[in-house]
Amino acid sequence: MYIYTMGCIIIKKYNNRRGVNLMINVSVLGATGYTGQELIRMLCQHNQVNIVGLGTQNYAGKPFSEIYPHFNGIVDTVCKNIDDPELIEDADAIFLALPHGLSVPYAEAAVTKGKRVIDLGADFRLKSPAIYTKWYNKTGPAAELLNKAVYGLPELYREKIRKADVIANPGCYPTTAILGLAPLLKNKLIDTSFIVIDSKSGVSGAGRGLVVSSLFSEVDNNFKAYGLPNHRHTPEIEQELTILANDDIKVSFTPHLLPMVRGMLSTIYTIPNKNTTLSEIQKAYHDFYSDETFVRILAQGQYPHTKWVLGTNYCDIGLSWDERTGRLVVISVIDNLVKGASGQAVQNMNIMYGFDEGLGLNRVAIYP
Amino acid sequence: MYIYTMGCIIIKKYNNRRGVNLMINVSVLGATGYTGQELIRMLCQHNQVNIVGLGTQNYAGKPFSEIYPHFNGIVDTVCKNIDDPELIEDADAIFLALPHGLSVPYAEAAVTKGKRVIDLGADFRLKSPAIYTKWYNKTGPAAELLNKAVYGLPELYREKIRKADVIANPGCYPTTAILGLAPLLKNKLIDTSFIVIDSKSGVSGAGRGLVVSSLFSEVDNNFKAYGLPNHRHTPEIEQELTILANDDIKVSFTPHLLPMVRGMLSTIYTIPNKNTTLSEIQKAYHDFYSDETFVRILAQGQYPHTKWVLGTNYCDIGLSWDERTGRLVVISVIDNLVKGASGQAVQNMNIMYGFDEGLGLNRVAIYP
Amino acid sequence: MYIYTMGCIIIKKYNNRRGVNLMINVSVLGATGYTGQELIRMLCQHNQVNIVGLGTQNYAGKPFSEIYPHFNGIVDTVCKNIDDPELIEDADAIFLALPHGLSVPYAEAAVTKGKRVIDLGADFRLKSPAIYTKWYNKTGPAAELLNKAVYGLPELYREKIRKADVIANPGCYPTTAILGLAPLLKNKLIDTSFIVIDSKSGVSGAGRGLVVSSLFSEVDNNFKAYGLPNHRHTPEIEQELTILANDDIKVSFTPHLLPMVRGMLSTIYTIPNKNTTLSEIQKAYHDFYSDETFVRILAQGQYPHTKWVLGTNYCDIGLSWDERTGRLVVISVIDNLVKGASGQAVQNMNIMYGFDEGLGLNRVAIYP
Amino acid sequence: MYIYTMGCIIIKKYNNRRGVNLMINVSVLGATGYTGQELIRMLCQHNQVNIVGLGTQNYAGKPFSEIYPHFNGIVDTVCKNIDDPELIEDADAIFLALPHGLSVPYAEAAVTKGKRVIDLGADFRLKSPAIYTKWYNKTGPAAELLNKAVYGLPELYREKIRKADVIANPGCYPTTAILGLAPLLKNKLIDTSFIVIDSKSGVSGAGRGLVVSSLFSEVDNNFKAYGLPNHRHTPEIEQELTILANDDIKVSFTPHLLPMVRGMLSTIYTIPNKNTTLSEIQKAYHDFYSDETFVRILAQGQYPHTKWVLGTNYCDIGLSWDERTGRLVVISVIDNLVKGASGQAVQNMNIMYGFDEGLGLNRVAIYP
Repeated sequence: MYIYTMGCIIIKKYNNRRGVNLMINVSVLGATGYTGQELIRMLCQHNQVNIVGLGTQNYAGKPFSEIYPHFNGIVDTVCKNIDDPELIEDADAIFLALPHGLSVPYAEAAVTKGKRVIDLGADFRLKSPAIYTKWYNKTGPAAELLNKAVYGLPELYREKIRKADVIANPGCYPTTAILGLAPLLKNKLIDTSFIVIDSKSGVSGAGRGLVVSSLFSEVDNNFKAYGLPNHRHTPEIEQELTILANDDIKVSFTPHLLPMVRGMLSTIYTIPNKNTTLSEIQKAYHDFYSDETFVRILAQGQYPHTKWVLGTNYCDIGLSWDERTGRLVVISVIDNLVKGASGQAVQNMNIMYGFDEGLGLNRVAIYP
Repeated sequence: MYIYTMGCIIIKKYNNRRGVNLMINVSVLGATGYTGQELIRMLCQHNQVNIVGLGTQNYAGKPFSEIYPHFNGIVDTVCKNIDDPELIEDADAIFLALPHGLSVPYAEAAVTKGKRVIDLGADFRLKSPAIYTKWYNKTGPAAELLNKAVYGLPELYREKIRKADVIANPGCYPTTAILGLAPLLKNKLIDTSFIVIDSKSGVSGAGRGLVVSSLFSEVDNNFKAYGLPNHRHTPEIEQELTILANDDIKVSFTPHLLPMVRGMLSTIYTIPNKNTTLSEIQKAYHDFYSDETFVRILAQGQYPHTKWVLGTNYCDIGLSWDERTGRLVVISVIDNLVKGASGQAVQNMNIMYGFDEGLGLNRVAIYP
Repeated sequence: MYIYTMGCIIIKKYNNRRGVNLMINVSVLGATGYTGQELIRMLCQHNQVNIVGLGTQNYAGKPFSEIYPHFNGIVDTVCKNIDDPELIEDADAIFLALPHGLSVPYAEAAVTKGKRVIDLGADFRLKSPAIYTKWYNKTGPAAELLNKAVYGLPELYREKIRKADVIANPGCYPTTAILGLAPLLKNKLIDTSFIVIDSKSGVSGAGRGLVVSSLFSEVDNNFKAYGLPNHRHTPEIEQELTILANDDIKVSFTPHLLPMVRGMLSTIYTIPNKNTTLSEIQKAYHDFYSDETFVRILAQGQYPHTKWVLGTNYCDIGLSWDERTGRLVVISVIDNLVKGASGQAVQNMNIMYGFDEGLGLNRVAIYP
Repeated sequence: MYIYTMGCIIIKKYNNRRGVNLMINVSVLGATGYTGQELIRMLCQHNQVNIVGLGTQNYAGKPFSEIYPHFNGIVDTVCKNIDDPELIEDADAIFLALPHGLSVPYAEAAVTKGKRVIDLGADFRLKSPAIYTKWYNKTGPAAELLNKAVYGLPELYREKIRKADVIANPGCYPTTAILGLAPLLKNKLIDTSFIVIDSKSGVSGAGRGLVVSSLFSEVDNNFKAYGLPNHRHTPEIEQELTILANDDIKVSFTPHLLPMVRGMLSTIYTIPNKNTTLSEIQKAYHDFYSDETFVRILAQGQYPHTKWVLGTNYCDIGLSWDERTGRLVVISVIDNLVKGASGQAVQNMNIMYGFDEGLGLNRVAIYP
């Protein structure tokens, strides 16, 4: 098996788990979903990574480029059955890009063998088994394994990510909501009893599954809310906001489906505390994200377009201060497949292995 | 000049202003904008209307079908200069589909000659000259004329519309917000200090003007908020909600631009009063709209898609009751060019002249 | 069962099969596909038609408006199983909007009971059983039934359609190709050995079936050719062109998939005979279509946009004469779901029952 | 002035015009058009290039990232007036991304100062001043300068490009047509009197200029041909095909506008010579492009989607051999802004300066 690693001269194999700037071997389980193939796009342009295995449920034996012909001549690797043990054995790090609820056994097998796991699904995101069961209607991972998992939002948990065995890569909606609210909650600048998160997502977030609601003729020139009132990203958002605020937080969260492929925007309504000023708020954002590569706070009066981050790992945030009503509206955008999924996963991997945090993450949006 | 009136056998001319079921003559000033041509689409399929003049700022002397070739063989009428006095003289009712701020002199001229006016712009919507001046940064119509104007939302003001000389046809965003909230406010079911209106509109609402932000390459696969925090539809929404609630109301209102041509959806967040039940709320909606042709309250758990009303005059409303947070989310959709502009104008005309309220308003959405 | 027939006062039941201007009863088998629901949109706005039954393969027992909520309050009829005999018994005319290959038994049952059939599928389009079998890889209808079928292109076969028991409603691609070429072939103006038909279709033509290639994320911002070199509409095009030219015709035909829902455009390359002039060609088109309601020949130098016919039954045709190369390019557009399917079916029904040919066919395109 | 050159450690300045692997300084005139900003996207990710100046007609004095905020924090360089002499003086290579007809004086000034020019416009593409004048209706560059220009299609003219002072970067349509036909013509495999090129382009090719035909509401869900019968890319195509075939070639060329941003597909109809076999044709393509990085010949039966090359410099080519009609259909796709403009310009620069031909050209398409 050969994978063409773009622009990468393979000099030596990874040989030291906590080593810096060494080549590592990775495999992707669930390679043929949209997040899987997006991950492979980034990994094959990452000069410290060697892709050693692609696991799929339905396409074992087929070259990856037959399923996604834009990889013709780039990644022609033959896919393996997702249960092929080589996928774990040959790799240092294993990415799980599977439908929710399927990750646990693979994560367990990998950790048992001393491998590190980055799970793009929801199985390890909620700390409370009871909450997981309530919202996902099933039992989550065993406590021992769950306790090894770190919520993979680098802007909040970078140090823990560095040493983690299992990364629970955040959901796309939570990424926009948490990054949008973190400076406000951390600095106790708003009324925590009033938070409305109105989110809109491109369709690629629904994956490649065959459902009527993902057909072009149903989505194009159409717009709708869905999943009301209990979308499964709600407890994930509340868990992290509660930690940030050190106060029990409940939010109104409504997801919507945009007639476009990629991009996500959350409009977040808050009530700043009395006496809080705009400049105090701005300072809170700039301070909180001053060292972050992938969060850009926009100039006052500028509000982000989803297209400004298309194909990139950026989260762009704009602030609207309405003196008339005493409200602050925060608008945050990401590419749901990048900072909302695969890009964040690569960022986590870079942190775990001591690489430059931006490696393999293409930094300029495709425009127009 | 000849206009082909589809399916309409022209039997006699209008001869009695308050008569019923008689043919009327109408003209459209601003015929070549998107709302203008949409109006003409409806009027030329309306069997009680004779279009006697089309006025434009830039295309005088050209056949209308040269500007909009989908009217080839249907409306080939030569456009007149917008200031041609025949446009007013020949008509019983004059539609003004002009950019905001230009309607007043035409409305004045028409009313002076005993004609009736339906203005699709904003100039007559706000009752308070001071508020108009504050938000539009200019002086509005004289008090005498302004006092003749009725806010043309049939579901609220049908009786006044019947006899009005000037109709201030509502804005698109306000139509979704007011229809979405009216039953709650009228029945005092919610906390009036907390209302968030998060609205999303198709691009056709921006008209045919040449600006970078309306280019295909800028809009497609893109999504953004705009006009924060002070979009001009805000005071219009607040004026009508205040009347409904009999209580001073301020709202958080954020408009967004969808990558699609037609359709508008507002997600409205409210806090129901303690002890208010879902069935009480549902009953309020059903009672309020029980006799309305163009408002459809969806079954519990069903949330409207904008495409369900594409090309129609419907406003579809869905309710999401979230027990966990004690919030009620109202979702209302319209076609911004129909119930949000030209269709509502025709509905108003139908009421003014005693026609069946649905005449000329095509009732089944184009799907998919 | 009740169907709201819009704008239609039901005065009496159909009682004379060949009668003129009498109400008829119709049923639709395959009501829940895209062409089925489009047919119902037109039929429920047709004032001489009473819809008495909707048959479906998967949704029996469900209200039609549950499957397509844009029909809420308009067509709430409960669907029947497609094999329910009442669907045929209760109707005068039966529309078959089924996947290719399924129509024959229903057509047979209907004709046996003295009913008339309009089949929107391909089963009755090809006169030659051998050609049918070669391209569709199965046996077609029995000769006796096939011989009762008329190819339902009104511009060519209006008189035969009037009396037909079975209408083979044309395919969408053939409609653009045949209408685009008919005047040239009938008048022997071009070299019949050189015809290239390059066609582009919106995605709705692929129906509501669940396939990866119809997903929004695959179609949006994408364009491709498909079905090369042997798309099944080829023999249908060649059959009709051969009849028109009275000469054996083979064409190069390439279909493409556009990233849009509705609309079809064919670019047809021809070599006019020596000495043929542009004005001769223009005259041929104008003469050929002079009495047609639904074919519009554009002014010289004007080329049709698909959007000019969106939601309408029009076929717009433009001609480009290139003196430099001696070629004539014909461009024809339709709405694939209207003139390319359901609208043409209603036009055929109107002819069959002596109604005004335009009844129920909404004549102004939705724009923009 | 500072430009962040991504992933690029600036080690030393360019000091040897024909040197290998040395840093060069470049400027872009016309930086704020779509091709200009696309060029900058690629250049700022190219590790051998230092962007020293951005020239614009309308935005002098503004940071580039204010005009295109997706460059926030990446290219915040202040734009200069396009006539600022520093733009030429400070650079080794000057990219001209200007509207057609404006390049000559800038190219002249640059060459006079010993600089090298890559012109993305049409001014240097046609070798014959007479043909240029006929199609562009103006006088082209002086003969002396014109003779220094090389047609910048690397697959045909790599050796000449290496030493050229002026590169005439090919048009987007010609790139698809010429690459699609070159192996056939070079090997004399087809009838040169019959070539039909039916091309379809995304809207970004029309640039950021303000015209009604580029508005979202006009383009979305719409499709049309344009520029018939004499689009200006015709003589460019014919010039190169004539050289390849060593035979005078005229083509039928029809461009169409797709409702999408990026991507171009040409469907090319040809008649292979008698006795020519499919395997002979396939071999011709594989041999012709065997050493090319950016041309991919697809497997037999596979036809390219435009999205397979989105954001990349690839040209993907598929072949359809129709035995029934004796025709060969060639389908070629590119991203019109990359291989059709800015990517090809960077590829030319890489050749001119001896860099790896793929440097700065992101190689995996963004999908979906």
